[in-house]
Amino acid sequence: MNEFTSRIPDASVRRLSLYLRFLEDFERSGVTSVASVALAERGGTTAAQVRKDLSHLGSYGKRGLGYSVAELTGVLRTVLGLDSTWRVALLGAGRIGTALFEYEPFRRRGFHITTVVDNDPCKVGTRLGSIRIRDQRELEDALCEDRIDLVIVAVPAPVAQGLVDRVVAVGIKAVLNYAPVQLRLPADVALRNVSMLVELESLSYDLARHRP
Amino acid sequence: MNEFTSRIPDASVRRLSLYLRFLEDFERSGVTSVASVALAERGGTTAAQVRKDLSHLGSYGKRGLGYSVAELTGVLRTVLGLDSTWRVALLGAGRIGTALFEYEPFRRRGFHITTVVDNDPCKVGTRLGSIRIRDQRELEDALCEDRIDLVIVAVPAPVAQGLVDRVVAVGIKAVLNYAPVQLRLPADVALRNVSMLVELESLSYDLARHRP
Repeated sequence: MNEFTSRIPDASVRRLSLYLRFLEDFERSGVTSVASVALAERGGTTAAQVRKDLSHLGSYGKRGLGYSVAELTGVLRTVLGLDSTWRVALLGAGRIGTALFEYEPFRRRGFHITTVVDNDPCKVGTRLGSIRIRDQRELEDALCEDRIDLVIVAVPAPVAQGLVDRVVAVGIKAVLNYAPVQLRLPADVALRNVSMLVELESLSYDLARHRP
Repeated sequence: MNEFTSRIPDASVRRLSLYLRFLEDFERSGVTSVASVALAERGGTTAAQVRKDLSHLGSYGKRGLGYSVAELTGVLRTVLGLDSTWRVALLGAGRIGTALFEYEPFRRRGFHITTVVDNDPCKVGTRLGSIRIRDQRELEDALCEDRIDLVIVAVPAPVAQGLVDRVVAVGIKAVLNYAPVQLRLPADVALRNVSMLVELESLSYDLARHRP
């Protein structure tokens, strides 16, 4: 356990991740201190919410003086685990998997995709960037040999649970799921689901509300 | 305005979207009524939360009898605007844009990508599926001719705001943003941001908390 032992609520963690992005922008523009209201404006939230989110980190910032951009950036990087490099395995080298593989900000943030597996014999043995795609049957070996911390699931829904069971069996504790299925995992494995549909449907909700 | 005029909170709308997915699974398996606890279990939430979310829809379900799967599915489809077809324009035919274009569930849900624009002369005029990629310079014409309801932004961050300003100027009211940048939009335009990093960082937060 690191020093931040009491769990920060999910919604706050997500906002902290956004604030970090804004702070890095501020840092690049030469801004050295920033008020909660500035972070709130960029994040589409309130200054009170920003202060509450940041209060989870301990006491940074002083009323009236704002937050030190450099200090807060450092604290957020540590809390979010971004001062480490994480070794990531990508399950599935289809369209979504490939797009994720080539998404440059992952690497910049310390998420290194070192391992790619697929079950398509035409793909196995070919390369994605510098990584040789391995056979899904070698999944356990691949995860262990490459000392994987985190797995991204980008396979079709029907095969996702079976693969993830094998991932969990070798002791992986973090899964990012792009497959459109609710995975069942032991309580000590962190899971985040990315649904391509949820955001779109929340937009159509808004459109439907305002339709004539 | 339709009959559901008071705005349902964002977090509830997202969960409603998930419940709909679960209900459709139940329907396919021949289940005709379902208790809030069953939806809660699949969605990783509590029965009380499910009842609260569903209470935004009016009074469906009866204590002890559960919800009618068919009825609730229908109500959710209406509320989420999924009883309509929405015409979608994709801005950017790069890796992410292409993956989104080929994501079959979008179409099944009534989101039809009818228009694709890009600024790459090598791409303009070629086809993505059956759609001819149009020049970004013709953006306004494309949006109007194709009677677009909703725009998906999958262009690099530096050009996103400029494009979206043009989208808003022709009266589009819904934007799904995949560009890693906070867009500024008028208050009457619905915006959802999909960050490929936020979920990953919330996983590394969990990993970092438990590291030795």
